[in-house]
Amino acid sequence: MPVNLNPPVAAKLLPVAGVLLGIAEANIKRENRRDLLVIELCDGAKVAGVFTKNRFCAAPVVVAREHLAQARGIRALVVNTGNANAGTGEQGLKDARDTCAALAGVLGCDPAQILPYSTGVIMEPLPVAKIAAGLPAAVANLSADNWFDAAHAIMTTDIVAKAISRQVLLDGALVTVTGIAKGSGMIHPNMATMLGYIATDAGVSQPLLQRLVAEAANRSFNCITVDGDTSTNDALMLIATGKSALPEVTSLDSNAYDVLLEVITDVATFLAQAIVRDGEGATKFITVRIEAGRDEDECKKIGYAIAHSPLVKTAFFASDPNLGRILAAIGYAGVDDLDVAAIELYLDDVLVAEKGGRAASYIEEDGQRVMQQSDITIRVVLNRGDVNATLWTCDFSYDYVKINASYRS
Amino acid sequence: MPVNLNPPVAAKLLPVAGVLLGIAEANIKRENRRDLLVIELCDGAKVAGVFTKNRFCAAPVVVAREHLAQARGIRALVVNTGNANAGTGEQGLKDARDTCAALAGVLGCDPAQILPYSTGVIMEPLPVAKIAAGLPAAVANLSADNWFDAAHAIMTTDIVAKAISRQVLLDGALVTVTGIAKGSGMIHPNMATMLGYIATDAGVSQPLLQRLVAEAANRSFNCITVDGDTSTNDALMLIATGKSALPEVTSLDSNAYDVLLEVITDVATFLAQAIVRDGEGATKFITVRIEAGRDEDECKKIGYAIAHSPLVKTAFFASDPNLGRILAAIGYAGVDDLDVAAIELYLDDVLVAEKGGRAASYIEEDGQRVMQQSDITIRVVLNRGDVNATLWTCDFSYDYVKINASYRS
Repeated sequence: MPVNLNPPVAAKLLPVAGVLLGIAEANIKRENRRDLLVIELCDGAKVAGVFTKNRFCAAPVVVAREHLAQARGIRALVVNTGNANAGTGEQGLKDARDTCAALAGVLGCDPAQILPYSTGVIMEPLPVAKIAAGLPAAVANLSADNWFDAAHAIMTTDIVAKAISRQVLLDGALVTVTGIAKGSGMIHPNMATMLGYIATDAGVSQPLLQRLVAEAANRSFNCITVDGDTSTNDALMLIATGKSALPEVTSLDSNAYDVLLEVITDVATFLAQAIVRDGEGATKFITVRIEAGRDEDECKKIGYAIAHSPLVKTAFFASDPNLGRILAAIGYAGVDDLDVAAIELYLDDVLVAEKGGRAASYIEEDGQRVMQQSDITIRVVLNRGDVNATLWTCDFSYDYVKINASYRS
Repeated sequence: MPVNLNPPVAAKLLPVAGVLLGIAEANIKRENRRDLLVIELCDGAKVAGVFTKNRFCAAPVVVAREHLAQARGIRALVVNTGNANAGTGEQGLKDARDTCAALAGVLGCDPAQILPYSTGVIMEPLPVAKIAAGLPAAVANLSADNWFDAAHAIMTTDIVAKAISRQVLLDGALVTVTGIAKGSGMIHPNMATMLGYIATDAGVSQPLLQRLVAEAANRSFNCITVDGDTSTNDALMLIATGKSALPEVTSLDSNAYDVLLEVITDVATFLAQAIVRDGEGATKFITVRIEAGRDEDECKKIGYAIAHSPLVKTAFFASDPNLGRILAAIGYAGVDDLDVAAIELYLDDVLVAEKGGRAASYIEEDGQRVMQQSDITIRVVLNRGDVNATLWTCDFSYDYVKINASYRS
């Protein structure tokens, strides 16, 4: 079960003026399953996004990037589960474009005004006909109050839906931000992919919106890892409808930008952490905080070496304070001039290691006590600079192997 | 059980003139267990080695490097299991030096003529008194015929001992090479470590010996991975006693050097592959071959991305030809200008993917058939250069999690 993550409640998700969501069952991989989502936007809504850096990026990622670059004004997003349309070559690109054309036909707009997203099995042809057949039902279902159902419609191996809303009073105007996400590994079994959709009724100029989504992603989705695999399909999209009373945000040096960045980062961080808490087989939520490094790069290198180590992750699964494994991971992180004698290692508030070895004050019972918790912080103080970085990950259990060894069967 | 790896037979391991091995039970971690090995060398024997690059390298690694640098002529190596003497700070260095001094006292030599090695739990103080108490028994046990027992004495979570001998007729002289190794992950639970000891009765000048061991390691132990963790204690040592009839090898441009490199690499490769075949929980031995790359760096990046991917490894455990996971790993390997449309992916001789997607000729039954095997080759043809690289790894099973989650209990 997800670690300290309660499913969202429909009543707590706020509509965002200018955004309608419609869900359908298109039988893409299985029958009787909500597997198709259409998000329709009002005229003038702006969309920006960040995508996977995987060179084998999926066809919909290529097409979504192309359509964003054409800047004709995005009218709708279409998301299918059950098939990732990745590793599908030229045919995959055609299938993604045909999906856009099908939705454009229903909505009466240009195909370049549609953004496509897919998640599911890799290297299987996308069943475009099934998707096209399901689109009218999804469009007929369009409603501003469908965020809760939309969060469910994009799930794959997720155990619980991930969704949240926030409101903030900004220069006298009430601004709403609602987001949904899916994913329970950075990449899934076959079910590649983290997908995230965050919408606000604030108005934001296109260049600032791109910056907002990149900064928010960098502080949230780019700080999580379940298994170190990077999906072919990852995408985080930020929608700004401009329907609130707040004047359009056009300057980076404005209070409005700072507040929006904070609230959107807050929503993105909740969703990103929810993905880790629902990580495949996860039983522990682990915060890895690297402090007093020289730069962000070395802090993240060390943080990811710890967060990716199967030995560290299995020790946490076992609630075993086998903490030498963390020292070993710090040591091979690739920071060549690291002085290990200067490092302090804490488990929550317990000082575990210093001066290159076990701390004199450390007793196993203290480590054991912290290891029993379901939320744990590993804190590494490098004592060589003033930069910090925080990552979130989960442990590594029998169930991770089970889920990923049996996914297709 | 190890994958297609039969335990060595004592009768097949050949003594190396100038090398004696003695084993004892020193009760380092448990009673009634061979946990101490002394390797005594003849006068004039030369020793060279390569060590872990982990910044948290263990105290014995630091001391062995120091003693090799002093070049006083190595008289003996001492190896203990049950405790890694890693993450032990200043006290650990003193303990490693005290271990050398204790053996020097028994053998009547200088402590700088002793090289120490430890493997076992991290961040626990080394029980030097127990080791010192066991040394006289190990020295009393010294014999040229003890390679088989020595291979067993250095085991930790290894299921089978790893050892092999080779002979070659070189310029009319019979040259023997015998090697032993331990390890069933690049790093173990706590049981950090790959240790390897290879001895030959050929004579080799010190600089050439260093080059030999580095080249052989680069083609063998540096091409394996079980879990991507790099031990604090890894060491591969090469001993040349000069007791054969072959004149000392002093030139890189000699037939003798080439032949020696080949036979030593052959021994090292057998031992390295044996570590993977005995990988923690392994059920499959996987060769990852990257062909037609621009340089070794990009070939190894892609090879390790595949070999480290938990998703790829669990798919092999399940015998599930879920091969999109391999494409995804290639895509995120960090080769930025990779043209994925040019890549061909083979599973043994079956062409799985080309032109960015599934090969037209590929049928699932063919992939399924290869996946049933216990030895499988993943071949990725990049089609952008003439450099190849080969790595060896294993799959990722329930037992890996079990072994590493329960190690200390």
